[in-house]
Amino acid sequence: MTTVAPEEIARRLEKFREALAREQIDLAIVRTPVNLLYLSGSIQDGHLIISPEREPLYLVWRVPERARSESPIEVWSIKSFKELPHLIALADLPSPRRLGLEFRLPHSQILLYQRLFPQAEICDISHSLRLLRACKSPWELERLRQAGKQLAEVVAEVPRILREGMTELELAAELEARLRRRGHPGYLRMHGWNQEIHFGHILFGPSGTVSAYVNMPSGGYGPNYALPHGAGWQRLRRQEPLSIDLAGCVEGYMVDQTRLFALEGLPSKALAAYDLVEEIMHMVEEHLRPGEFCEAIYHLALKRIEASPWAEGFMGLGSAKVSFLGHGIGLEIDEYPFLAKSSPFVLEAGMVVAVEPKIHLPDIGLVGLEDTFVVTEAGPERLTLSERGPKIIPI
Amino acid sequence: MTTVAPEEIARRLEKFREALAREQIDLAIVRTPVNLLYLSGSIQDGHLIISPEREPLYLVWRVPERARSESPIEVWSIKSFKELPHLIALADLPSPRRLGLEFRLPHSQILLYQRLFPQAEICDISHSLRLLRACKSPWELERLRQAGKQLAEVVAEVPRILREGMTELELAAELEARLRRRGHPGYLRMHGWNQEIHFGHILFGPSGTVSAYVNMPSGGYGPNYALPHGAGWQRLRRQEPLSIDLAGCVEGYMVDQTRLFALEGLPSKALAAYDLVEEIMHMVEEHLRPGEFCEAIYHLALKRIEASPWAEGFMGLGSAKVSFLGHGIGLEIDEYPFLAKSSPFVLEAGMVVAVEPKIHLPDIGLVGLEDTFVVTEAGPERLTLSERGPKIIPI
Repeated sequence: MTTVAPEEIARRLEKFREALAREQIDLAIVRTPVNLLYLSGSIQDGHLIISPEREPLYLVWRVPERARSESPIEVWSIKSFKELPHLIALADLPSPRRLGLEFRLPHSQILLYQRLFPQAEICDISHSLRLLRACKSPWELERLRQAGKQLAEVVAEVPRILREGMTELELAAELEARLRRRGHPGYLRMHGWNQEIHFGHILFGPSGTVSAYVNMPSGGYGPNYALPHGAGWQRLRRQEPLSIDLAGCVEGYMVDQTRLFALEGLPSKALAAYDLVEEIMHMVEEHLRPGEFCEAIYHLALKRIEASPWAEGFMGLGSAKVSFLGHGIGLEIDEYPFLAKSSPFVLEAGMVVAVEPKIHLPDIGLVGLEDTFVVTEAGPERLTLSERGPKIIPI
Repeated sequence: MTTVAPEEIARRLEKFREALAREQIDLAIVRTPVNLLYLSGSIQDGHLIISPEREPLYLVWRVPERARSESPIEVWSIKSFKELPHLIALADLPSPRRLGLEFRLPHSQILLYQRLFPQAEICDISHSLRLLRACKSPWELERLRQAGKQLAEVVAEVPRILREGMTELELAAELEARLRRRGHPGYLRMHGWNQEIHFGHILFGPSGTVSAYVNMPSGGYGPNYALPHGAGWQRLRRQEPLSIDLAGCVEGYMVDQTRLFALEGLPSKALAAYDLVEEIMHMVEEHLRPGEFCEAIYHLALKRIEASPWAEGFMGLGSAKVSFLGHGIGLEIDEYPFLAKSSPFVLEAGMVVAVEPKIHLPDIGLVGLEDTFVVTEAGPERLTLSERGPKIIPI
């Protein structure tokens, strides 16, 4: 059975314990699936107890046997929330003065902890964990590379699938099915709590310029008002941009890629906008090196676009324009760092970012490109492998 | 464009305002997509402000224009969280003494509201909203019936798709694609905050008895340890139970259904267990009437199973056994009421419940049945329409 390499877990735990010590948090309890996976190798439902000084302990409600087979950490069974203080004492772990919890947990969950540890000051550990996850190890990069291959294999089939008049949902169904057969879980983890993302955005022509409730540079109609983004009922016509934005996923690690396709051809405006999008991508690639400021990269792109005819529709239209150009990615779609306005991040080797310059052309559609890169001393390594476009399919 | 009927919104708001008045909450702010959808008809990212006395106001960050086209409620644009108190005052809405928020929101979000309204006592409105959503209107039932038809159409194709040696993921891919083509959003809303459910559980033979971190009577291996439930790499063999648990979804409304299939035949143990599962289903159906106690229905099933040879594997094995037999369903997979141990609910006309008696047979697989019903004065109406099984496919 595949599991996370035990050396990975040891390295991550060591770094997290250092962070706890720095923040004078004497006990942290990790609960969210993504962070359980990162720190223990298992997401069986439980409380992962970590202190700067002691060995970690994984108190699992569902399913302790599976947690033991997935994680090198000691697993105890727990029946109810109320047992927590007792089990913590039994394991000789500290009764917390400063208790670290993930503030992304539902408020109702935090209240339960507050009741169990009334003396403790509750502190947020979400930010530390996101920082920790930002730099990927060689072991993690191997999974990300595989995710890039998985996605490229599927996107390579697009020309054989496309036909005039098909709906966005029909194309999405075909591509999602190919990802699922390759082990894609179908569920994308995201830090943003109300984003409800599925596989990605497959948008034909005018759908591409429809903004949605998600904080992304594309939206789309979706199937209906009840989940109004992503693929919907728009039918594919000739000579319009077809934007395929999908995530590959291997062992929880995701890469994000957008490619532009069209049947028969594209309007000259779309071709010109695409040239600029590629130019911006090349410009950004030059700066994906350790020590570069994420905010500066964003403004560089913005400056270039403002000198072009496409500024109005860059990264969205009107009030729905987003103020980022790229985002970290890994176990979640929206990891640190962000290439964005006011971003505090400086690039480091091992950071993985998806860069997605996209231009909305009213009445035409979405013209964009997205690739996921790992930052290395020698420059960026591209993890998303599909040939860049635009890919024009003859009829 | 399809939207929620304005009379629906008016009726829901009226009931919610009554609930607020009863709980002496002078202002409620609704934020989660599911409750925005329920109360406004739109899930554009924003704050839906509701008070017992005044007209509601929808302050939308992304995308106000879409919110206006989807919702009959007055929509104002909001740029940042900080503007909230000012906009609330401007609209002549009360400065809250008791502020209602959904305690399922991330803790970090609740802290933002606390900072903006430091004088206010913060109260939970999640429970009131779940209570309100439990009884479905004729308009909602129409969507649920359509979801039942959508799912039945897809499950009817199973006999043509199955082949010996295919993986769970391959079958899942085929069925999910068929749902997507019919407008299924692919994303299932769930109240349970860490359940990470995708379309459902498609489990072959021994996978059916593998418990997972989700609080459900089935689990499965999943693709790997990183999302360890649902379809995985198990291959279909002859004469083993194949459990297909999927949700249909139309305009956000879901139904839940499980059917048992097999290639060539089933072991006699599985056939006998299935007979009992059907018997329990019939027994429960007799009690799906207004005024019946949900806990009593659960114990009735438990009593019957305890008089049989299958008690050990009923609703899970060992410590992973779940203590419910059914759950409400609608805009979320896990709505009120629950047919469960210590359930406080009494059935009312219009409540919709998925009833899922399931038996784990070690070394054989999962033998179960699940149907979604609406409770009416005249008895239950079944919304999930696939023929009950077991469906044996000859090779």
